[in-house]
Amino acid sequence: MSDHGTPDHGTYDHGLDPKRRTLHLNAFLMSTGHHEASWRLPESDPYANTDVGHYQRLAKIAERGKLDSIFFADSPVLRGDVGRRPAGSLEPTVLLTAIAAVTERIGLIATASTTYNDPYNLARRFASVDHVSGGRAGWNVVTTAGPEAARNFGLDDQPAHAERYQRAAEFLEVAGRLWDSWSDDAALADKESGVWGDETKIRTVDHAGRFFRVRGPLNVPRSPQGHPLIVQAGSSEDGRSFAARYAEAVFTAQQTLADAQAFYRDLKRRAAALGRDPELIKILPGIVPVLGSTEAEAKALDRELDELIRPEYARDQLAKTLRLRPDELELDAPLPADLPGEDEIEGAKSRYTLIVNLARTERLTVRQLIGRLGGGRGHRTFTGTPEQVADAIVDWFEHGAADGFNVMPPVLPSGLETFVDEVVPILVRRGLFRSDYTGRTLRDHYGLPRPVADVAELAVTG
Amino acid sequence: MSDHGTPDHGTYDHGLDPKRRTLHLNAFLMSTGHHEASWRLPESDPYANTDVGHYQRLAKIAERGKLDSIFFADSPVLRGDVGRRPAGSLEPTVLLTAIAAVTERIGLIATASTTYNDPYNLARRFASVDHVSGGRAGWNVVTTAGPEAARNFGLDDQPAHAERYQRAAEFLEVAGRLWDSWSDDAALADKESGVWGDETKIRTVDHAGRFFRVRGPLNVPRSPQGHPLIVQAGSSEDGRSFAARYAEAVFTAQQTLADAQAFYRDLKRRAAALGRDPELIKILPGIVPVLGSTEAEAKALDRELDELIRPEYARDQLAKTLRLRPDELELDAPLPADLPGEDEIEGAKSRYTLIVNLARTERLTVRQLIGRLGGGRGHRTFTGTPEQVADAIVDWFEHGAADGFNVMPPVLPSGLETFVDEVVPILVRRGLFRSDYTGRTLRDHYGLPRPVADVAELAVTG
Repeated sequence: MSDHGTPDHGTYDHGLDPKRRTLHLNAFLMSTGHHEASWRLPESDPYANTDVGHYQRLAKIAERGKLDSIFFADSPVLRGDVGRRPAGSLEPTVLLTAIAAVTERIGLIATASTTYNDPYNLARRFASVDHVSGGRAGWNVVTTAGPEAARNFGLDDQPAHAERYQRAAEFLEVAGRLWDSWSDDAALADKESGVWGDETKIRTVDHAGRFFRVRGPLNVPRSPQGHPLIVQAGSSEDGRSFAARYAEAVFTAQQTLADAQAFYRDLKRRAAALGRDPELIKILPGIVPVLGSTEAEAKALDRELDELIRPEYARDQLAKTLRLRPDELELDAPLPADLPGEDEIEGAKSRYTLIVNLARTERLTVRQLIGRLGGGRGHRTFTGTPEQVADAIVDWFEHGAADGFNVMPPVLPSGLETFVDEVVPILVRRGLFRSDYTGRTLRDHYGLPRPVADVAELAVTG
Repeated sequence: MSDHGTPDHGTYDHGLDPKRRTLHLNAFLMSTGHHEASWRLPESDPYANTDVGHYQRLAKIAERGKLDSIFFADSPVLRGDVGRRPAGSLEPTVLLTAIAAVTERIGLIATASTTYNDPYNLARRFASVDHVSGGRAGWNVVTTAGPEAARNFGLDDQPAHAERYQRAAEFLEVAGRLWDSWSDDAALADKESGVWGDETKIRTVDHAGRFFRVRGPLNVPRSPQGHPLIVQAGSSEDGRSFAARYAEAVFTAQQTLADAQAFYRDLKRRAAALGRDPELIKILPGIVPVLGSTEAEAKALDRELDELIRPEYARDQLAKTLRLRPDELELDAPLPADLPGEDEIEGAKSRYTLIVNLARTERLTVRQLIGRLGGGRGHRTFTGTPEQVADAIVDWFEHGAADGFNVMPPVLPSGLETFVDEVVPILVRRGLFRSDYTGRTLRDHYGLPRPVADVAELAVTG
């Protein structure tokens, strides 16, 4: 998986100064926006979560801004309280395929679980999305925390955190070998002699490991990108080790410059220690830009959104995340003192720690914490004018905290439109972001090479 | 699953005489066509198997002819000999989603295996395709014969035939309950009170059976059709029982009117015996129309195609199907006398029997049998003018052998274009096929009701 060949495209050739390091921007899309109360705004369509046209329009806006990619989170379970906000969502590989059909360049990153899928089926699905999109598929690899998802797949509880990551690693190894099971030149298509495929260039993978036994080869020819872009988003110890080995882009939630710098340094160092070029792992902290023409306007939107939150729903959810009963959380008091440590949590460890640290560091009451989380689930919220948001982005980018950002508009479509039409042009003027696409594939946009199928490693099929 | 409510649409209201029984036509699409040598014709693009644009163009042709649906076969394994014909294919739910984005009315039927999928993921994916297509999704339920597929999923061999069908039945029960786990009116979207979903209208399914334990509810709201159209294609004893209980459309391979009539009567009788309205299970035999402006032209195309077959590839494949070594088949001799009976076969039983009967009844040599199978894998091949093909269709339709046809063009796109532009108009003129769509969903086209979620059966979620 980490064995990349010679890049087909210059790493920083984005129609910009090729020597200058430039930003990568991903739009993280979620129905009516990341703010949990966004669906209650007059502009919002509360049925947007199942409306493919809504997402196709959002993707076109992001493509107008020449963003690297769009992204959907996912989990094979109905999450959270259905009363609180739009619940249920279209399966991301299906949704992104529908988007691929109406866009031309923007990258398409779908989340899929290694705990609740089979490598053969999922590798084939991502290869298929890569084919139909002309090389624009990315896979955000998740291990899926929580017992609720486990119960949809015949288990009583989730496998342990470490075991989920071990399975994920084996899953990625198998998927990589399946994607490489066809050489790029396996289809001869020789009409004259009547020989379509060269069977010496299509190989079984014959994987037999702890979690999977898979014979192969894959039942689809090698895709435009070879492998989809591999993305990862967990920041626990296991998550970082996994990212350092496999990820090509990392989404992370960081609240302060110092924390973001520490995370950035740590992950680049880990990747280098594994023999990888640290430039080929792009780190993108989340940012929730609450935008207004003036600072006052931005703050008014922030307030309007927070006032639309129903705190009882949010408290139930927070209690669940912290493994407490809802009545253990008082809205106008701080978090209880005696919470368990991260190592006692089998769920989403990094999110747990982030929430507890945020509450403790800033001495927030439960109600205040809910306001902070309601906007973007613990990601950095930045409220201000387009110029101020651009400054905030450049600040982290130029101070060793980010290779780009995972942009999480609090309200959709308006928050994405404002970002694309008012923040992006500032970044372009500063020479830090492309004014047009120069490549065709998602790997091109991120300046990442196309993996070469390692023929020598694979047995020839009979 | 079999509990359907009142239809939303008249069963035979297709812009035709509502009292008159009319045809249903499905286009079964396969890269360059069903004839194994079609890729060698000058007109064919031998890389069509991974070209989404090719399939989008085919779907638009079928939609121009107002066909009920298009369909893709599938198996989670690389089948057959890659030298012989285009191998490897895009995953059908992905491919049909890309097609949904560029079409408006035509139904979209994807094959998926109940043996090598999880009900939660697959039910969610079909519900998602149904959402993004506006209610045009169908699922051809297959149990996937053969040890090769099993080896891609951690097994040494396939589960026994009967066990695969038992699993399929339980899979369908679970999927049906997941699709019904949201009432149609579960999303209140009440902005004023801040309550999005009514949690009393979203229910767990709490299934615990022999093959699956699934808690639910599904993580996507109920789709336009409620359930995708359920299609089935195996004609073994187990396959027929399954179809009689669950299928709403049945694809079948029949060579003679008498066999087709017997199959038709048998399946309608079985459905009625289970308390189902036999009109709500549509039986569509396959037909491979080899078309020419004159009979001589059609026969010339037939000959051209058969001469492009490389018999050594076809013999290997035939030997595999018959569980023989290739050297046990002599090209210019009949099949060996001592073949095993259908009950000794764990694979695709009905296909096995069809091939053996075809060879024995018509006293074919292996070479002749290969020619017959090469055109459409054992389906009825009919060579002639558009008028003659229309007559052949009407003959079976009016003599109790078919509710419509699974049209398998030997060459694509030309075979589909000729069918749509020259055969369909004849059927329209005879009052047996629609001249335009009158409904919006795949169920509308087939005259099948939208299933009602059976609320009483399901527990309320906490």
